[in-house]
Amino acid sequence: MESARARTLTHVEPAEVALQVALDALADPVRRSILRDLATHEDWSRACGTFDLPVTKATRSHHFAVLRSAGLIEQRDEGARRLNRLRRPEFDRAFPGLLAATIDRAD
Amino acid sequence: MESARARTLTHVEPAEVALQVALDALADPVRRSILRDLATHEDWSRACGTFDLPVTKATRSHHFAVLRSAGLIEQRDEGARRLNRLRRPEFDRAFPGLLAATIDRAD
Repeated sequence: MESARARTLTHVEPAEVALQVALDALADPVRRSILRDLATHEDWSRACGTFDLPVTKATRSHHFAVLRSAGLIEQRDEGARRLNRLRRPEFDRAFPGLLAATIDRAD
Repeated sequence: MESARARTLTHVEPAEVALQVALDALADPVRRSILRDLATHEDWSRACGTFDLPVTKATRSHHFAVLRSAGLIEQRDEGARRLNRLRRPEFDRAFPGLLAATIDRAD
């Protein structure tokens, strides 16, 4: 059964995202580090709590919400863990070359 | 003879620019419109005052300064006009694919 927490997760299709929203999401070093982490791990293998980020829990949640709103990640709850997937194929279709130019390189 | 105004123009090599600075510069719709304009005109053919921008003169100057600091444009004064060039080849070398993904497409 889907939890109340899972039902609150709103996702946006990359094709529906404005370039401005995509750039705002990518123009933050913590969010780029999350995306690089996801890019180098299997889909759904990383839970939000396992990322080593230099921010508070509230800020962490905000970063993940921004990435979701920009069509960059998909999330699903599995018990107490919130698992993540980089939406690489669909984001690349909507914004060709943008991830390659931003997270496939060092900062 | 170089004017005092021209001497105050500071340029930054794209190779010296951090990805964060490049993304901050590109994550603004007015600055992207300036870059698209430059991308479709000959080098040095566009003076700052000729851009049709929905901003004050001070904000306009700020946008051009940000673009210069991010290694995206080169400027030079010719009489009362400040001419511009998109630093496409050198920026593309420093950030492969980033301009293609941001200004070679619509917003």
